[in-house]
Amino acid sequence: MYYMASTELGDRLLSSLAGEYGTPLYVYDGKMIAERYDAFYSAFSGRFANVRICYALKANTSLAVCSLLRDLGAGADVVSAGELKTALAAGFSPEDIIYTSNSKSDSDLALAVDAGVIINVDSAGELESLGKIAAGRKKTARISFRVNPGVNPKTHPKIATGLAESKFGLHIEGGLALAAYRKAARMKHIAVIGVQAHIGSQIQDAGNFVDSARRLFDFALELKKIGIALDFIDFGGGLGISYQGAKSLQPEELAKALEPVIRDGFKRLGYRPALVFEPGRYIVAESGILLTRVNSVKKTPYKNFINVDSGFNTLMRPAMYDAYHRVRIVGRKGSSETYDIAGNVCETGDILARDRMLPKARKGDIIAILDTGAYGMSMTSSYNSQTLPAEVLVRGKRADLIRQRGEQDDLYWRQKIPEDLS
Amino acid sequence: MYYMASTELGDRLLSSLAGEYGTPLYVYDGKMIAERYDAFYSAFSGRFANVRICYALKANTSLAVCSLLRDLGAGADVVSAGELKTALAAGFSPEDIIYTSNSKSDSDLALAVDAGVIINVDSAGELESLGKIAAGRKKTARISFRVNPGVNPKTHPKIATGLAESKFGLHIEGGLALAAYRKAARMKHIAVIGVQAHIGSQIQDAGNFVDSARRLFDFALELKKIGIALDFIDFGGGLGISYQGAKSLQPEELAKALEPVIRDGFKRLGYRPALVFEPGRYIVAESGILLTRVNSVKKTPYKNFINVDSGFNTLMRPAMYDAYHRVRIVGRKGSSETYDIAGNVCETGDILARDRMLPKARKGDIIAILDTGAYGMSMTSSYNSQTLPAEVLVRGKRADLIRQRGEQDDLYWRQKIPEDLS
Repeated sequence: MYYMASTELGDRLLSSLAGEYGTPLYVYDGKMIAERYDAFYSAFSGRFANVRICYALKANTSLAVCSLLRDLGAGADVVSAGELKTALAAGFSPEDIIYTSNSKSDSDLALAVDAGVIINVDSAGELESLGKIAAGRKKTARISFRVNPGVNPKTHPKIATGLAESKFGLHIEGGLALAAYRKAARMKHIAVIGVQAHIGSQIQDAGNFVDSARRLFDFALELKKIGIALDFIDFGGGLGISYQGAKSLQPEELAKALEPVIRDGFKRLGYRPALVFEPGRYIVAESGILLTRVNSVKKTPYKNFINVDSGFNTLMRPAMYDAYHRVRIVGRKGSSETYDIAGNVCETGDILARDRMLPKARKGDIIAILDTGAYGMSMTSSYNSQTLPAEVLVRGKRADLIRQRGEQDDLYWRQKIPEDLS
Repeated sequence: MYYMASTELGDRLLSSLAGEYGTPLYVYDGKMIAERYDAFYSAFSGRFANVRICYALKANTSLAVCSLLRDLGAGADVVSAGELKTALAAGFSPEDIIYTSNSKSDSDLALAVDAGVIINVDSAGELESLGKIAAGRKKTARISFRVNPGVNPKTHPKIATGLAESKFGLHIEGGLALAAYRKAARMKHIAVIGVQAHIGSQIQDAGNFVDSARRLFDFALELKKIGIALDFIDFGGGLGISYQGAKSLQPEELAKALEPVIRDGFKRLGYRPALVFEPGRYIVAESGILLTRVNSVKKTPYKNFINVDSGFNTLMRPAMYDAYHRVRIVGRKGSSETYDIAGNVCETGDILARDRMLPKARKGDIIAILDTGAYGMSMTSSYNSQTLPAEVLVRGKRADLIRQRGEQDDLYWRQKIPEDLS
């Protein structure tokens, strides 16, 4: 079984990229993205005939990364009108795009209907709006519903989405989801073609996916009883990685664990809907490295700090989710001192990594923050008036700048000062 | 004593602004910003001769808001090279700008030296870098040091900065700060002119400020003993507001509490340094309202959700700091249902307000999220490929669009797709 923790991009390359493009810099290993995609796809397509991997754009929305995944054969899981447009701009076909969001405006829905993507409906109210919009356009909206299967995976509460109290989806419990399907089946401009569930992020226990899959098949069977057959069952995303660099649940193991439930489900259903998966983090996280430069090293009576030129504006995960990322100093070996890597945002909570044993750090050193290919660049902001980082995609011996570094003028873009104040 | 919780911008105005400029929309009450600034300035200038209020740009970096405060007579507290440039662009004079950051690059320091702003040095290593840079430019850098006074205010741990383990400043404890002043005083291209401390954010207990001020005067006395006189003592920012709309600590009370310590400090010192304060949140928070539209209303067996067209990309504070903001439905009265206001970001944690009693909500309603003038727009991101909101500054009968709504193309700005992927 394929497994390699994090990208193996070498220090000489990283150092030269930091020199050429400056810091902070996100570097992605395209080869690893392809390997991860292939590992996921083959684990399931080796077992089942009709499998589609819809890459969850929110993990990394860079056009080049999206285009790479489109080239590899992925579909797209999008969560906003903006991501829908991005997926189209990256060349995904509308029929390969599924649009999920708890909160879609009428104009979002109209865009989705016009584009012809699959709309993953979140509520009865949304179904009603969508029916009117599709009718008004004399078009048929192809939809699934996001259902809440009531599975509670063990993960960070902020990213556990299957919880009963979640804002997402229609509860299977209490018949809410079934009622919505019943209603949708009678609507003229609505074609019900699928069901979707997504139980959370960063899940490492195949049992959670198995539970959710079983409930989805149970539910599909209920739908069959009311005369609804599905083109697809979408099991969502959520496959985690190990930010500690340990071995994590791999697609092959996941597929193996899901195989009996799916085979049994097919048997119970008497037909075989396509199987859809929406991995994001698994595909891109370990391919990414954030390079950041040491501005100063500071000793206090309590802590040693390495002050770098990134902060939570550049990498939100540590401040937002208490997330752990491995760090190392590019081109340096050993581990002689304990440091906090302090970001350059003016908040005490802006510590990118705590209590790490590293070689003695010097001003000018490049720090590599690993596994930052997912929810890194896509969550950046210009807080503290910091400009956005640059991004490079490495494929073999080739390195392409896929996003130029932001400039000060970007911060003023679309701003206006009233004349009497200027 | 002046006090009014939040802006009194009327619902008719808010509704018409949402209609004209769309949602999500940040609206600021310029009159209130001016009142808050004046309240702060007069509380201290009514008691002392030489007072400067340096507005902390990070709270709200919009050029129009910054320009308004410049017009009112404020100086600027900036925390990055980007904010420094923004302050200059908004017309602040370099001598009225103080630049604080735990992590400044050599190019940041060079920019600050060239611009002639006051540099608030954070560490011995930074002092050394700055000395070389100033010498290389044959210029004199005017500096203060940020000191860690060892005061522990009762506030959210993520925003308490005076803690002993904080990344910020030189500890007074152990003689670190004193040693740095001693060294700086001997450096040819460094002019030591001040001392600064900032003990945290959202502080509502004047006692914390009193403790910190006392230690700053104690420290200034130590400096006097080694022959260093200060042009200014900078007490930092951190004055909170009540997000619940209760009465919070006001500048007048703060000034009253600080008065004896400052008078005593002047007496002990035998001279009178200028008094600098760096409020941000206090000046702008309550002036701001985020307007967001209801996309759908959803009942689940566990919760009622109002799904809106903003998320933590638009207002980070609830997801990031578990922050509370009052919400109301524009133009609607009563309170008949309990709702969560669910953001449109594809994360379970994206709930803007929990368990709020509101009138029965309908699709299309406008929700006003109060007290969002600080750390609202300045923390926005394009996560989930959402475009940035627009901003309006209201002054009396006048409403100016000060930032146009972002567009999809902004998300592609500076991105490149390698030819073989396009």
